[in-house]
Amino acid sequence: MSDAESPIPGATVARLVDYLAVLTRLADAGVSKVSSNELAEAAGANPAQLRKDLSHLGSYGTRGVGYDVSYLQIQLDQHLGAGLDLPVVIVGVGNLGRALVNHTGFSSRGFKVVGLVDADPALTGEQVEGLTIVGDAGLETLIARTGATIAVITTPAEVAQQVTDRLVASGIIGILNFAPTALSVPSNVTVRKVDLGSELQILAYHCRVPGSKDSLLSAWNEQSNELAGADPL
Amino acid sequence: MSDAESPIPGATVARLVDYLAVLTRLADAGVSKVSSNELAEAAGANPAQLRKDLSHLGSYGTRGVGYDVSYLQIQLDQHLGAGLDLPVVIVGVGNLGRALVNHTGFSSRGFKVVGLVDADPALTGEQVEGLTIVGDAGLETLIARTGATIAVITTPAEVAQQVTDRLVASGIIGILNFAPTALSVPSNVTVRKVDLGSELQILAYHCRVPGSKDSLLSAWNEQSNELAGADPL
Repeated sequence: MSDAESPIPGATVARLVDYLAVLTRLADAGVSKVSSNELAEAAGANPAQLRKDLSHLGSYGTRGVGYDVSYLQIQLDQHLGAGLDLPVVIVGVGNLGRALVNHTGFSSRGFKVVGLVDADPALTGEQVEGLTIVGDAGLETLIARTGATIAVITTPAEVAQQVTDRLVASGIIGILNFAPTALSVPSNVTVRKVDLGSELQILAYHCRVPGSKDSLLSAWNEQSNELAGADPL
Repeated sequence: MSDAESPIPGATVARLVDYLAVLTRLADAGVSKVSSNELAEAAGANPAQLRKDLSHLGSYGTRGVGYDVSYLQIQLDQHLGAGLDLPVVIVGVGNLGRALVNHTGFSSRGFKVVGLVDADPALTGEQVEGLTIVGDAGLETLIARTGATIAVITTPAEVAQQVTDRLVASGIIGILNFAPTALSVPSNVTVRKVDLGSELQILAYHCRVPGSKDSLLSAWNEQSNELAGADPL
């Protein structure tokens, strides 16, 4: 299969999102053209990988000129489904839940938090950023009323699976899971786990090999060359 | 260079952390052996990639038997520097900062939050999880006293760079950045950006193609046709 026909590998989607974030910053700064080297560096990828990733969109840039920032931004927006204003419910309104309610990165990427659920009766009825916290029993009604298809789980690990089962039964097809536990869902439901501890662990690893960017890059290139023939990640 | 000698590519490190998380769950469940297929699937990687990733550690498993869970867990722990109890300071004690202070994923992965800083005078002196919030002016002293080399930034975007400059000047070499802005640092300092909005965007992308390569495939074909007529970049 050619890149244009094959589904985009998950690791590539993650990088496309990073490229889009960089392009948005460049566009805001009034930059109209960007080279693959510049874009790759700003996104923490390498140029060979970036060109391979963008080839999934049929974008190849122009040698010596690079990519048109606005055009590539629009292509990525369309592919990643930004600007859809997708309704999202947050289950678990502790510190993390509250931090996410008004997360600018949500609205700027086409998401709208439309509902909050927390099992603590003391929180029921509390207003957070213009939303009223609903009690545990109101979860199904809230999802039906808001038409949310995506949920963010910031509950304790012990109740996350039970919450997940109710979300799935209510029609949620995408779950961003911050609870430190693995969730089992039907094959039509997508779960993305955010593990803040692992982010710190990855950072710490790189701190232990400081200034090895050059060798890291060469390792990358070796890898992407080998991967040219291999299955997409 | 052989894989064992070369620095591990960034994308591989991220997957190694995922493998370790799965192995830890398996060990807790009393599982002693795991096949590359099982481990790869649980970590959301593919078997070929997993075998290549683990080859960086010199771990090749045994055909037909798979990997020894405990042994591989120890190898990954050592490579990723877990169990070091690295001191971490958190700058910005809003909802997100508070959510991170007692994040179980931090301690379980060898990190210890040793200090909290917030510019809001109203918060100075407040106790959070046994730590006393230090005012903005106390940042340098705190880092010197705790010997922290890693910092987590959860400040507003506007002040993140200024905070970063002071952290770097104080000897911080690793920064986990939650502020929605790019940070510039010297080459000896590692920054890892956590963009919660992008996590949601990646999830949404996968939701739009719920496990079905077909709908994605047709999306590709439509898009390739459009691009056939599009102006070259």
